[in-house]
Amino acid sequence: MARNFKLVLAYDGTDFNGWQVQPDRPTIQGLLSDAIFRIAGERVLPQGSGRTDAGVHALGQVASFALDCSIPAQNLLLALNDKLPTAIRCLQVEEVAKDFHARHSARAKTYEYRLFRGAICNPFVARYVHHYPYPMNEEEMSRAAKDVVGEHDFTSFAAVDPERGKDDDEPSNVRTIFESKFVSEGGQLVYRLRGDGFLHHMVRNLVGTFLLVGKGTLAAESICEILTAKDRSRAGPTAPASGLFLVSVEY
Amino acid sequence: MARNFKLVLAYDGTDFNGWQVQPDRPTIQGLLSDAIFRIAGERVLPQGSGRTDAGVHALGQVASFALDCSIPAQNLLLALNDKLPTAIRCLQVEEVAKDFHARHSARAKTYEYRLFRGAICNPFVARYVHHYPYPMNEEEMSRAAKDVVGEHDFTSFAAVDPERGKDDDEPSNVRTIFESKFVSEGGQLVYRLRGDGFLHHMVRNLVGTFLLVGKGTLAAESICEILTAKDRSRAGPTAPASGLFLVSVEY
Repeated sequence: MARNFKLVLAYDGTDFNGWQVQPDRPTIQGLLSDAIFRIAGERVLPQGSGRTDAGVHALGQVASFALDCSIPAQNLLLALNDKLPTAIRCLQVEEVAKDFHARHSARAKTYEYRLFRGAICNPFVARYVHHYPYPMNEEEMSRAAKDVVGEHDFTSFAAVDPERGKDDDEPSNVRTIFESKFVSEGGQLVYRLRGDGFLHHMVRNLVGTFLLVGKGTLAAESICEILTAKDRSRAGPTAPASGLFLVSVEY
Repeated sequence: MARNFKLVLAYDGTDFNGWQVQPDRPTIQGLLSDAIFRIAGERVLPQGSGRTDAGVHALGQVASFALDCSIPAQNLLLALNDKLPTAIRCLQVEEVAKDFHARHSARAKTYEYRLFRGAICNPFVARYVHHYPYPMNEEEMSRAAKDVVGEHDFTSFAAVDPERGKDDDEPSNVRTIFESKFVSEGGQLVYRLRGDGFLHHMVRNLVGTFLLVGKGTLAAESICEILTAKDRSRAGPTAPASGLFLVSVEY
């Protein structure tokens, strides 16, 4: 009788090729699958709450998988942290109901995007921010950020690729955003986004667009028009992966 | 007429083969020399205040070198940070007197060694600490740390290799320690050491020995005997590089 496990993971995404397993490349999903196999002798493919791209970090990614093995959850946690590289840590393991699925059961997710504003970015922070020392109108960026709150079709902010709708298998690009705001934290400007689902590259494309607003290239009012256009070419470029963190997943 | 420059550098040592230039391997000195050549067209070998080993970090390493080039110091700083990898940052550049030499002119240096004490070490801290979650008697470690303050022959804590006396070209292993103490910072126990010079592996060998005291394998009182013995085999093992930071150099 298989038991269903839920894992909470943190990782420094810098040196990995993202979440999704790929042949001959280090990925979070692949390394996790290998670690589970070494511990339990069972080959499973843990399902994440969503994929994270190469270089994207996680403070609280969630994964689920079923095992026949009788290992207690706490032992599985210790064994995983023993087998995984130190850049991937398992923070929590629990046995959950059979119907729990990290992606299908997710109700909301929170992301943060960190912009380092100082002239010189210290090397101990550089991997975890996008260094953007140029002048920006942060007030206009905050105004723009508010306009994505609510239910919208985010086609304009989705990567034009086969991974659309990757979060929840829905063919639709409509998502609901509960919170979208910029907050200052020391020398960093942090964009915080909470919603019921996210399209591929959506957070990074939003940030790339807000940066255009900050520079004055785009008016804060443009966000509504860009949403309505449902046209990727109307939004800004994809911001670099290094600044992005999957903070938490709610069930 | 050559001008003499003083640089203050911070680096994440994880992905480098230490300070000293080596053929076909990324080192701080080598990358700095390359960056200067690309900017000024002059091939110089910047002299550091001392070598740092592979994996050791710096918050304030100092380097000096002479250039004929007329570039203003502030432009050199900007150009260096443009050419260097983001894991190495130039924090300060100034033109100094002809007789300034980063190693010979140094009067004191401060190092810190960071021990992470929690059960699970988050991946964003893992590169910058030695993860040591085991029980330790921190009071005994503090007592032991005090005994290295003053002028001592540190042969017992020096690597048995040709790099002895590397800091100051002195054949003697006698150094004066001004401060040696443990302080708690959040979930970390930080060993802070300030002295007039350091032998190869000296800080890491001291920490490795204090860890034996913390575990109870060695009495706090043993430090004086180990110093007197002038025998490397009497001290503890070399603690891992990841926890060590060269904090600052005084002139």
